[in-house]
Amino acid sequence: MTELRGPVRIVGTGLIGTSIGLALTRLGVVVELVDADPETALMAERIGAGSRLVQVEPQLVVVAVPPDHVGAVIAEQLRLTDAIVTDAASVKSKPLADAAALTDDLARYVGSHPMAGSERSGPLAGRADLFEGATWAITPHEKSSPDAVELVRRLAEAAGARTVELSVEDHDLAVARVSHLPHLMSALAAGTLVDAPSSHLELSGQGVRDVTRIAAGDPRLWTQIVSANSGALTGLLEQIRGELDRVLVALGKEEAGEELTSILGQGVSGAVRVPGKHGAPHIDLVTILVTIPDRPGQLARLFADAAASGANVEDLRIDHSPGRPVGEVELAVKPGSVDQLVGVLTERGWAVHR
Amino acid sequence: MTELRGPVRIVGTGLIGTSIGLALTRLGVVVELVDADPETALMAERIGAGSRLVQVEPQLVVVAVPPDHVGAVIAEQLRLTDAIVTDAASVKSKPLADAAALTDDLARYVGSHPMAGSERSGPLAGRADLFEGATWAITPHEKSSPDAVELVRRLAEAAGARTVELSVEDHDLAVARVSHLPHLMSALAAGTLVDAPSSHLELSGQGVRDVTRIAAGDPRLWTQIVSANSGALTGLLEQIRGELDRVLVALGKEEAGEELTSILGQGVSGAVRVPGKHGAPHIDLVTILVTIPDRPGQLARLFADAAASGANVEDLRIDHSPGRPVGEVELAVKPGSVDQLVGVLTERGWAVHR
Repeated sequence: MTELRGPVRIVGTGLIGTSIGLALTRLGVVVELVDADPETALMAERIGAGSRLVQVEPQLVVVAVPPDHVGAVIAEQLRLTDAIVTDAASVKSKPLADAAALTDDLARYVGSHPMAGSERSGPLAGRADLFEGATWAITPHEKSSPDAVELVRRLAEAAGARTVELSVEDHDLAVARVSHLPHLMSALAAGTLVDAPSSHLELSGQGVRDVTRIAAGDPRLWTQIVSANSGALTGLLEQIRGELDRVLVALGKEEAGEELTSILGQGVSGAVRVPGKHGAPHIDLVTILVTIPDRPGQLARLFADAAASGANVEDLRIDHSPGRPVGEVELAVKPGSVDQLVGVLTERGWAVHR
Repeated sequence: MTELRGPVRIVGTGLIGTSIGLALTRLGVVVELVDADPETALMAERIGAGSRLVQVEPQLVVVAVPPDHVGAVIAEQLRLTDAIVTDAASVKSKPLADAAALTDDLARYVGSHPMAGSERSGPLAGRADLFEGATWAITPHEKSSPDAVELVRRLAEAAGARTVELSVEDHDLAVARVSHLPHLMSALAAGTLVDAPSSHLELSGQGVRDVTRIAAGDPRLWTQIVSANSGALTGLLEQIRGELDRVLVALGKEEAGEELTSILGQGVSGAVRVPGKHGAPHIDLVTILVTIPDRPGQLARLFADAAASGANVEDLRIDHSPGRPVGEVELAVKPGSVDQLVGVLTERGWAVHR
């Protein structure tokens, strides 16, 4: 059994590195903090993520530097230490290839990808519970030793995450599908709004808000992420281009019907596969709409009444169209508790719509 | 002054037609309900949206039939009555062109587009308050009489909506931008998930859920909507194809950087232009994250505590990654109330992150 004893050296004390440091420090594991920017490491130390000066050799090194530098830092840490080395980059083929170009000594390296984050960045955004219940992908390559894989699994579990083991290639195709492609599609859709007159944007509803939300992410960081996964992403983008051409051809015809319906139908089939809460497909939940006056305390009253019905609200969404003086809250609950919920809310004076 | 006296004939008693009927009936306006399917009209009548038998000639006809039939029904109603005629279709050029092919008598017609809806459909989903505070676009054409425009404005205001006047062409380009293109992008992104192994979907986060949500909409209805707006949409889709090609070329290069960052940067500029609540750009709000245990009553407790701080929650979002035993709620409030909110929540034991 490979135990996580520490010390753990964290190279790169941004949001992810600092959060790992905070989680491990909380468990009593000694954490060494290293960052190319001394100020950044100092900040991470000050909020309790570990120490900049640790005399004992690390058992494990976690490389949490920006995507472009990951491979080089992995190779460097393999050379400098006898420790197991992992990284936290969101793409796995490129760091492995970059490291392999610099060293053959890769048995002690196994990639990993803690799938939690935030629109915030930097050490001060770090949180000990960032990975609590999150998914942490572990991506062994053919030379990874079983000990290395086991130790990285211990690290993820220590941070409170649920581990998923995938090959490097599978991981990168998966994140291309569920993260990088959606990001690019969001950015392309949002990009068409740059030159739109304000009167056009006044007609915006919840749909365009949802589709374009992630497009607001940092362009430099996303350039690195997307570039690092160009292999997996190119295939998907070519698939999108093919479908886009089908849409354009269909729209040019007198009768666009069948072809467009088939493309939109594929969209429905894909959308319902995206897991919702607890990995359950979101079609398992029933949603109701409740109209709420837009003033303080109304949400509190609504949720108190919902709780009184015994229903657990699994998901919720506020629809707030521009200029709308009343809000609309969509509550999703398990099918078994919907009748009771609607009954109690109606009884207590809420305008409820199924 | 053109007053809305009624009777108002509603042709097509689905969600929109029935909701208009309910809103007008509530105000004491006589509403006549007509539908190609007698059962549908009967259902609308039973829930109080109006009557199937009205002896008096209508003052106003509202055509709320499926997109493909709107133009023909407008022309028919102009021929059958002396009333002002409007429609509720989400695209305005095609109904006008279709009607113009059948009649020259278009002074009494002015298009309109009540911008509210629901994932639900049919008369039983109808609600008197569906348009309360929503945007209702009015799209006069060159032959529309001022009286017709004024009466349709009265209709929208009677339903509680805020009116926006746009030319037919401007309206269609606007909805192509803020509704139809986002829908197609969402469908194309979701379509790539159809053949993905389940292990890939396990890595899904909130981003892909947001981007693909609207792709779950009815493919037949959306085929009609999108086909009816093929003119405006084709230009935007060609723009997207151009950008997609730029992304593909950039990804194929050794150094994708500059080009990708510029495309992603355009996405950021577009995303921040999408109005949030009350037409305010969403960057005017400050968000905080609160960790909540996943059991009944926690949201009630959270919102009670938030209300106690005096802050009005302007927007909220639950992040519920698969398998995560704790939830995370993102609350958006005005900058002026964030300190007070964080103070009160922290004091009451919540784990709050800015």
